[in-house]
Amino acid sequence: MTDKIALTPKTHTTPPAKFSHGVRKGNILQVAGQVGFLPAEEGRPPTPAGPTLREQTLQTLANVKAILEEGGARWEDVMMIRVYLTDVDHFAEMNEIYNQYFEDLTEAPAARTTVYVGLPAGLLIEIDALAVLG
Amino acid sequence: MTDKIALTPKTHTTPPAKFSHGVRKGNILQVAGQVGFLPAEEGRPPTPAGPTLREQTLQTLANVKAILEEGGARWEDVMMIRVYLTDVDHFAEMNEIYNQYFEDLTEAPAARTTVYVGLPAGLLIEIDALAVLG
Amino acid sequence: MTDKIALTPKTHTTPPAKFSHGVRKGNILQVAGQVGFLPAEEGRPPTPAGPTLREQTLQTLANVKAILEEGGARWEDVMMIRVYLTDVDHFAEMNEIYNQYFEDLTEAPAARTTVYVGLPAGLLIEIDALAVLG
Repeated sequence: MTDKIALTPKTHTTPPAKFSHGVRKGNILQVAGQVGFLPAEEGRPPTPAGPTLREQTLQTLANVKAILEEGGARWEDVMMIRVYLTDVDHFAEMNEIYNQYFEDLTEAPAARTTVYVGLPAGLLIEIDALAVLG
Repeated sequence: MTDKIALTPKTHTTPPAKFSHGVRKGNILQVAGQVGFLPAEEGRPPTPAGPTLREQTLQTLANVKAILEEGGARWEDVMMIRVYLTDVDHFAEMNEIYNQYFEDLTEAPAARTTVYVGLPAGLLIEIDALAVLG
Repeated sequence: MTDKIALTPKTHTTPPAKFSHGVRKGNILQVAGQVGFLPAEEGRPPTPAGPTLREQTLQTLANVKAILEEGGARWEDVMMIRVYLTDVDHFAEMNEIYNQYFEDLTEAPAARTTVYVGLPAGLLIEIDALAVLG
């Protein structure tokens, strides 16, 4: 029997609902859909890093990373990244930010799927990730 | 060599097409996208549990659960739940139903991603799930 | 420590960005979102197999298959296929093509989720896949 562990980084609130920001069981780590909210502060409602795609993408990636690290994983362990955008016209800019962000990756980058969906008002990007630890 | 097993609960039809309602291979169990159809009855076309989000969400969760159990898994084994809604305004209500449904969960709840997409007419929610058995 | 290997079939370009067409680590193989682009040719920009759903679906499935095979997997190893369409009215035709394509499958077919999203102009279908090797 392997335990399933909820991953709650310090930058995140204790989940307000019956979901985990991330879970690890054995060598599998799943990160829940993250958006560009700034690190949680007591008494402040969830606040996006800013209105731009750049601000939100970098914050979203930071939020995913915090959960990976809480579970003992690195970006190098990630197999799949799902990117949800709200606007097809954001693809080129997201890709540029993404490529810069992962420039120093030392192993094969994750597979990725990008699709265009609806998100709550003001949010331009959501990302989740599946990692397999070594 | 580990066998891949198709999971077909009694509440579901034999799949009419080349997909499985769920599959298990080794300790990995994947549930296909479920919607709020009532348990299958011979001669009746697939019928949603009702027109409301509440009816469809509860039926969809029941349908996911039937497949998990067919494969020997419990909600506690689920790592990731993907929720597809058709309307951003449904999030709060879905969340309330979801939290009540999972109130008695004895382990870390699954990670979750919720996005807003198109679904066939009349369907308000679709859910799939990935489980890792202990 | 198990290595993560990038999967780049001959039919695909070296990824122009920090993603992999597919990755394998241990017995887990993830195929990135594929669309209906013809096999890559030096100096030609990515070109869809044609404007129709049939042409794009068959090419997309061929592209997924090439990555599976590059990683030593077969369709029989696939646990989950995610199909992204742009139009609910395309479901019946996609399903018919899909069922013909998988007619000779010798094991339980993969679970599947189909949702309707936005895709870049001219693209009607995107597919990704998760496989667990035996």
